[in-house]
Amino acid sequence: MEKEKVTLPKFDTEKYLKEGDAIYAQRAEVEKVADKISKDGYSNIFLLGIGGTWAEFAPIKYAIEKYSDVDVYLVNAAELNVLKHRKLTKDSIVITASASGDTKEIVEAVKWIVADGIQVMAFTKSTGPLGQVAQTVIEANVTTGMCEYSYLLFNLLALRLLYNRGDFPDYELFADQMKGIFKNLVDIREQFDPKAEEIAKKYYSEPYNIWVGSGALWGETYLFSMCILEEMQWVRTKSVTSPEFFHGTLELVEKDVPVFLVKGEDECRALDTRVETFCKKITDNLIVFDTAEYALDGIDDKFRALVSPLIATSLLTERLAAHYETYTKHNLNYRRYYRQFEY
Amino acid sequence: MEKEKVTLPKFDTEKYLKEGDAIYAQRAEVEKVADKISKDGYSNIFLLGIGGTWAEFAPIKYAIEKYSDVDVYLVNAAELNVLKHRKLTKDSIVITASASGDTKEIVEAVKWIVADGIQVMAFTKSTGPLGQVAQTVIEANVTTGMCEYSYLLFNLLALRLLYNRGDFPDYELFADQMKGIFKNLVDIREQFDPKAEEIAKKYYSEPYNIWVGSGALWGETYLFSMCILEEMQWVRTKSVTSPEFFHGTLELVEKDVPVFLVKGEDECRALDTRVETFCKKITDNLIVFDTAEYALDGIDDKFRALVSPLIATSLLTERLAAHYETYTKHNLNYRRYYRQFEY
Repeated sequence: MEKEKVTLPKFDTEKYLKEGDAIYAQRAEVEKVADKISKDGYSNIFLLGIGGTWAEFAPIKYAIEKYSDVDVYLVNAAELNVLKHRKLTKDSIVITASASGDTKEIVEAVKWIVADGIQVMAFTKSTGPLGQVAQTVIEANVTTGMCEYSYLLFNLLALRLLYNRGDFPDYELFADQMKGIFKNLVDIREQFDPKAEEIAKKYYSEPYNIWVGSGALWGETYLFSMCILEEMQWVRTKSVTSPEFFHGTLELVEKDVPVFLVKGEDECRALDTRVETFCKKITDNLIVFDTAEYALDGIDDKFRALVSPLIATSLLTERLAAHYETYTKHNLNYRRYYRQFEY
Repeated sequence: MEKEKVTLPKFDTEKYLKEGDAIYAQRAEVEKVADKISKDGYSNIFLLGIGGTWAEFAPIKYAIEKYSDVDVYLVNAAELNVLKHRKLTKDSIVITASASGDTKEIVEAVKWIVADGIQVMAFTKSTGPLGQVAQTVIEANVTTGMCEYSYLLFNLLALRLLYNRGDFPDYELFADQMKGIFKNLVDIREQFDPKAEEIAKKYYSEPYNIWVGSGALWGETYLFSMCILEEMQWVRTKSVTSPEFFHGTLELVEKDVPVFLVKGEDECRALDTRVETFCKKITDNLIVFDTAEYALDGIDDKFRALVSPLIATSLLTERLAAHYETYTKHNLNYRRYYRQFEY
């Protein structure tokens, strides 16, 4: 029996898969850039972001530290602009990103970094302010599934760098299997969508929301609570890692306080389970998003932790955000302050 | 004219100064430990904490990175227990702390770290579970001003290590001047106390509180919002660094939303000022704690950034917490969950 065609509200499946193919087709371009960086040599890696980009780079830092001894620093651009960093030298490679191309703090940072003779590789528009300054640019012309595409491109770049160091011999297999990732993520969306609607309907007007995650999923947990709920929905959140949860935030859990746990598939899963076990005893409103629930056709289990941020972002930043918007009636694209005036 | 004697509620000035003298008298012991660590040699420094101790080590990481090229890692004990860390080797020196001596995640970590043949230096009770495992222990028998004493001891140890590397030639001057720090912190308490009462009275029952800080004061900002307001007062907070504030949290500021800004004296002050300027336009409830407001007799200006966490903790974790307790009528020592049962 053929699977029934599901229509996802506010989502153009066809366009998403088409853009996904285009992103995957950039694999050779990303590898060429990585190979050039490897050939030129580098002493350490700086992942430069702020807000959403910082969060998207967090699992890349996790992956690099998992597989390699190379020094990697995840830095906030505004902080770097004032504090500088002793380990950032002419031998460093800086990897950054800006979809808009004009993230103020990142553009400011990259200007002085490039002036200091340090190589910067940016995922951004070649014609934007960041693209004009960085020495190397990879441009993705997409309008759907932004975070997933970013995660894939960042992973391909970082893991290819590790492969070139002998730290991730599985690179070719991983990259080959990523061909089918976006189809998987459509299936996951379809499977999760009714649950997303239910959660949004029940919790969209909660005055306080605790979000918990860890390891490879901490970035996405933070991103959803900060970029989506705070910035785009004006929903009050407290986000905290699973290990830190037990020092402070736990005391705020009550029967009617919603706790959203993004449960992952890496070494930190035991810490997520500890949060889950505790919260089950205290609140009637524990919502668990477990990436392990979702099958990934054609992708080896050993890559699941690397892929888990893509699953989580499909669930949260994509489906849950869309349903929140429907219930809050608050346009995801409307800001009252951010980029609206000088500050 | 002699200054009028001020009585601070819930604070025993005499005892605090006496304990402060005892802490300062440990300077020679701390230096001896530091000199031994330096003599034995180490390749990098791990600051190991969780919750409050993680937060107290944050300004120490700031200080080390400010003055030295030595690699320093600030790690969460529960996370380290599952993720491990490739840079943690037999050549590392681990610095940790636990006032209770039995912080579960830290004791667990130190057990396997010591078993791996790595040196651990712990600020804790020599008779407690942590003190029994760590190879080197510095014990402080105090009951008042805990955070200030910790900050001083941590600073003395870290800066002495840097001095021994040639990275902080001012060590002797700094350590000499710290003799008068606790008297200064009493004066600062007295100056701030009426303001603390006013703030607690006005805001103790707010349903949502944004706390912002940066640089050397981020640890203390996070500590106050997490340890004091969340864990000890069950007050809902969102804490965020000044650079990150502009990506997400800013959209939640409204006329009646309280924003508490802990304004520091280091390179990040400009980021704090940016938050201040923005919030002044939006909310009627911006509360600024500016450590620069407070004079420090007998302490050079160049040491102010290092001392700023001690000022901030005197204001917040000491005076403001005491007044919150008075208004919330919620005992600072009462927990409903933390350490109350297995989880």
